[in-house]
Amino acid sequence: MSDLPAHVDIQEEGPREGFQIEPGPIATARKIELIDALTETGLKKIQVASLVNPNRVPGWADAEDVIKGFKRKDGVAHHVLWLNEKGLHRALACDGLYMFGSISTTTSETFMRMNTNRGFAENVRVQKNQIAIYKENGVPVTRASIMTAFGCNFEGDIAPARVVERLEELLGAAEEEGVDIEIISLADTVGWATPRSVKQVVGAVRDRWPDKRICLHLHDTRGCGVANVYAGLELGVDLYDSSVAGLGGCPFAGHKGAAGNVCTEDMVFMCEEMGIDTGVDLEKLIECARLAEDIVGHDLPGKVMRGGALSALRREAKAKPAQA
Amino acid sequence: MSDLPAHVDIQEEGPREGFQIEPGPIATARKIELIDALTETGLKKIQVASLVNPNRVPGWADAEDVIKGFKRKDGVAHHVLWLNEKGLHRALACDGLYMFGSISTTTSETFMRMNTNRGFAENVRVQKNQIAIYKENGVPVTRASIMTAFGCNFEGDIAPARVVERLEELLGAAEEEGVDIEIISLADTVGWATPRSVKQVVGAVRDRWPDKRICLHLHDTRGCGVANVYAGLELGVDLYDSSVAGLGGCPFAGHKGAAGNVCTEDMVFMCEEMGIDTGVDLEKLIECARLAEDIVGHDLPGKVMRGGALSALRREAKAKPAQA
Repeated sequence: MSDLPAHVDIQEEGPREGFQIEPGPIATARKIELIDALTETGLKKIQVASLVNPNRVPGWADAEDVIKGFKRKDGVAHHVLWLNEKGLHRALACDGLYMFGSISTTTSETFMRMNTNRGFAENVRVQKNQIAIYKENGVPVTRASIMTAFGCNFEGDIAPARVVERLEELLGAAEEEGVDIEIISLADTVGWATPRSVKQVVGAVRDRWPDKRICLHLHDTRGCGVANVYAGLELGVDLYDSSVAGLGGCPFAGHKGAAGNVCTEDMVFMCEEMGIDTGVDLEKLIECARLAEDIVGHDLPGKVMRGGALSALRREAKAKPAQA
Repeated sequence: MSDLPAHVDIQEEGPREGFQIEPGPIATARKIELIDALTETGLKKIQVASLVNPNRVPGWADAEDVIKGFKRKDGVAHHVLWLNEKGLHRALACDGLYMFGSISTTTSETFMRMNTNRGFAENVRVQKNQIAIYKENGVPVTRASIMTAFGCNFEGDIAPARVVERLEELLGAAEEEGVDIEIISLADTVGWATPRSVKQVVGAVRDRWPDKRICLHLHDTRGCGVANVYAGLELGVDLYDSSVAGLGGCPFAGHKGAAGNVCTEDMVFMCEEMGIDTGVDLEKLIECARLAEDIVGHDLPGKVMRGGALSALRREAKAKPAQA
């Protein structure tokens, strides 16, 4: 218990993930409404849109309009996703976005080939080129991500040593380009993680890079999402990606397995109830989750928005304080 | 990590909880179908019906027909719920049920008065009378339950010392009646628990009664259900109540906060993936969860039934085994 951090930072990805996967269309104004509401919760980092090919992701054909429309707020970093140089330049053309570069790899060459038609060696060249482009454009490169860090649908179980091996390759490439990565993001891309593997992989990565900050990106595909967060907390991990209401999971047949990130407000509930500060107002966040359901027009997986926060119940509790 | 148990026992409560709360009607044959399927999964204890007043719980008006209809299997204990002497006699009149007596209390006198119109002192008398009735009927009294062990909607936070205090009263009453309770069941009746409070309450109870077996009954009201199971596992707790597919939660407005027990197959997934034997065939259990959804006619909260087990993916994994 003693390693629980005093504070965690949460990187909200709900708007980008959710509006990408929903069959839509969802009005631009409603996307902005959710982002504006999230901006008022105390969340410090929110991924608001995806600057990708609108033919492939029609849900983000209005990305620039959304980016123009939402309200900026001091202390809140709004950022966007891009997948190539064109997307980066679209982002640079927008005002008031928080810009940072990220490089990535996977543990599984099969998975990489399926997604990008690259092998590991080719990926190193691509990532180095990405760094060069970021440098040309004055974008700091701060984050290195590794996908399928806890298992792969094509290659099965992944030993922690493989995670370290691929990260050595990626961080080595960054170092050759004169970039010092701050954050290592371990992604459970396809929902294989359990608390045990979270502890094994985080342990191996921290042993190798004790000074890097670790981020966990956990999809709640098989119900272990919040338990995996707890395993991270027990190791002192203090940075998590998540999605309000669990946005990003798709309730429709055929996509039912494609569960999204762990639900932001469920994670905030657990942290705050355990005395871990998130800086987030849970009741405001629950309102955002209900708004997200209203916008997408169907149930989303979050639980606390149904169960409710405990703060009101505590206020109403008629009895004397619990005896110690 | 070293305290994770090698094996856990799971007490399935899905049929009783689920068919009680669903607006129904659900055909008797379909209830039997689910019980028969669960009986073949490796689960060793299944609560199959509720022998309560059919005017108050119309979903169980056919309890005796269900009990007559399901297939018995050696090594599987099928049992039922009753709330008073009349229910007990109905259970005793049925063949092939596993019979055991349970006594109970709560941490919160307000909650107790709301539910049973009793105070603590009156409850002790009632529980002693229950024990006498069990003895008259040759039913062993093995379990003591405490509701709202982690918090109460009326009285707020509950100090672990209050849990111990109420259990001392209840176990003391049992001892006076010559009954040695085997299992202490700690129930998070209204979904207040987090991993931290699970550790605090289990720790306090175990310090006081190191030789009793602890059972956790955790409602997944606010998304911490599986994380709370993990916290229990870390302390070596090896007995859990749960509901297949998360049956018992109600998807309808007005009842949305009434989440059911933690989902059996999500818990089995986590345990088995961490090397903890449950004796349950996860793939068969997932089929039961899908059957439960088909029977109730709407989505249920379980996740693994959507994400799928990993066993098939592992079998198909083309790559060599992970390097160590």
